[in-house]
Order: sequence, then structure tokens, then C-alpha cells
Amino acid sequence: MRAGDLAVPFPAVKSSSPVLEAARLLADQNLPGLVVTDDGGRPITVLPGTQVLRLAVPAYIQDDPALARVIDEAHADKFLAELDGRTVAEALPAQPKDLPIVTAAATVLEVAALMAASRSPLVAVVDAGGVLTGVITLDTLLDRMLNR
Amino acid sequence: MRAGDLAVPFPAVKSSSPVLEAARLLADQNLPGLVVTDDGGRPITVLPGTQVLRLAVPAYIQDDPALARVIDEAHADKFLAELDGRTVAEALPAQPKDLPIVTAAATVLEVAALMAASRSPLVAVVDAGGVLTGVITLDTLLDRMLNR
Repeated sequence: MRAGDLAVPFPAVKSSSPVLEAARLLADQNLPGLVVTDDGGRPITVLPGTQVLRLAVPAYIQDDPALARVIDEAHADKFLAELDGRTVAEALPAQPKDLPIVTAAATVLEVAALMAASRSPLVAVVDAGGVLTGVITLDTLLDRMLNR
Repeated sequence: MRAGDLAVPFPAVKSSSPVLEAARLLADQNLPGLVVTDDGGRPITVLPGTQVLRLAVPAYIQDDPALARVIDEAHADKFLAELDGRTVAEALPAQPKDLPIVTAAATVLEVAALMAASRSPLVAVVDAGGVLTGVITLDTLLDRMLNR
């Protein structure tokens, strides 16, 4: 039982991709975040879903969410339009999230230890060239551990 | 469109519950974390899935995940047995995660602002007595925003 047996295909975005593409992937699937790759498909970091909202919601409202109560609802529903023309790179946190990376040969315990140490529910699996081939999610790992 | 329209039923655990129960809920469903309530059903905090692994994986392996490579695989697969008899309270991080809480009357923008400000992909929805009635997830919120 190795990392390669736990890896699942997983949507990734490039740091140059439109952030609206990332928002759609997050909305359509139940993902804790998206793997961000360079143009060569090598994983760089992870985009937490909440960062998309940080880019979309005006800063003065994030500072005082109670202000949101007095904003016209019809307008509020359109705030994702703020994302238009922005890239994934713009949504990344100033302190990039740690994304553990393993090859398919990593052991299950190694993957679990990396998730625990980095507090990342995602581990990227790469081939010998460092190109993303899949992702191991926390629930896949726990499922495998509990149901064997 | 209010928080009450976005809330979905969501598994919660009590801080006194067995942590293995939390691990099973995380494994069976694709959740970013579990809402932890007191014995009266009032939300206290969120248990990130990776905390369950932090309790299960020996500290010396978290400090040096490469050590995991030399551990017998048959033994490694049983490490979740470490969780036996431990409670959710023991798995909670020393610095509890911020769990935003709203009533069903909160606006969509208010929910988005709370998620962005707290970096929490979960917002708990409570009734007038402060008891958990549902949860709004980031993907539900984004889905509603993008597909209206």
C-alpha cells in the first residue's frame, strides 16, 4: 500500500489561470482547496477556498461583517463579479500554504505524517519529473485506514 | 436569500465524543472539518481533519516523516488504533479554530465576509437558543453565487 494506490485525479489550476475558474472548481466539487501548478504542471502551493472570498469581498466588509447586513441584497449577490479578470496568483495568501509533495512510492504512514505535520488535508503526488499526477485527500486516507 | 436558505444538515460531534467517531465521519464524507458542540448542542469550535492525524501519528514521525519509510507497513496501517479511547477534546488544537456563527437571518454577503475574515470554510447556523441547526460550507456558498 503506497501513495500511488491512494492518489486520485484532482483538478489543478495554474497560477496564471483566471480565479473565476478556481471558484467554479471549488463550487462544483467538495474540495478543501485547489492545487496550484506552474505552467509545466509542477505543484507550487495550494489555494484555500476561503482565499477566493478574500479577493471577492471588499476589505471594509471583511473588517466588519456586520456592515454586510445593510448592503442591498441584490447587489451583494453579485460580488463575485469582483473576481473578473483576476488570476489565481492574486488570490494566493501572502504566506503561501504548505503543500506536501510525495512520489507514488511514499508509504501510507509517511503521507499521514506529512498531513499531520503540515496540517494540510491534501498531499500532491508527482512523477519522477515533478509533474502532478494526482492528489491524496485526508478523507481518502482515513477511509483506507478505517475500512481495511 | 438568507443564511437559512444555504444551511445544510451537517454531522457534528460533541467534545466528549470518541475521536474515532470523528475519524469515521471525516472518512465517510468529504468534509473540511467537523463542528464540535457542547452537550447542549451549541457549537464551540471546529475540528480540522488533520488534527485527528496529529493525535494518531507518533510525534517523532511527524517531526521527521522520512522515518515513516523505514517502519513496517503492516504496523503502519494500524496506527489509527492509537485513537482508541481518546476523545474529540484531546484532538482539538491548542489554539482553537475560529468557527463563525450566524442565525438563519444573516445575509449571504455577511456569511461570505465571515468566511473570508476567519478563513473558515464552515459557518455554523444556530437557532435563537444558540443550538446548531445546520452549516453553510464554502462550496455551497460559491455554488449559489456562481449559478444564480
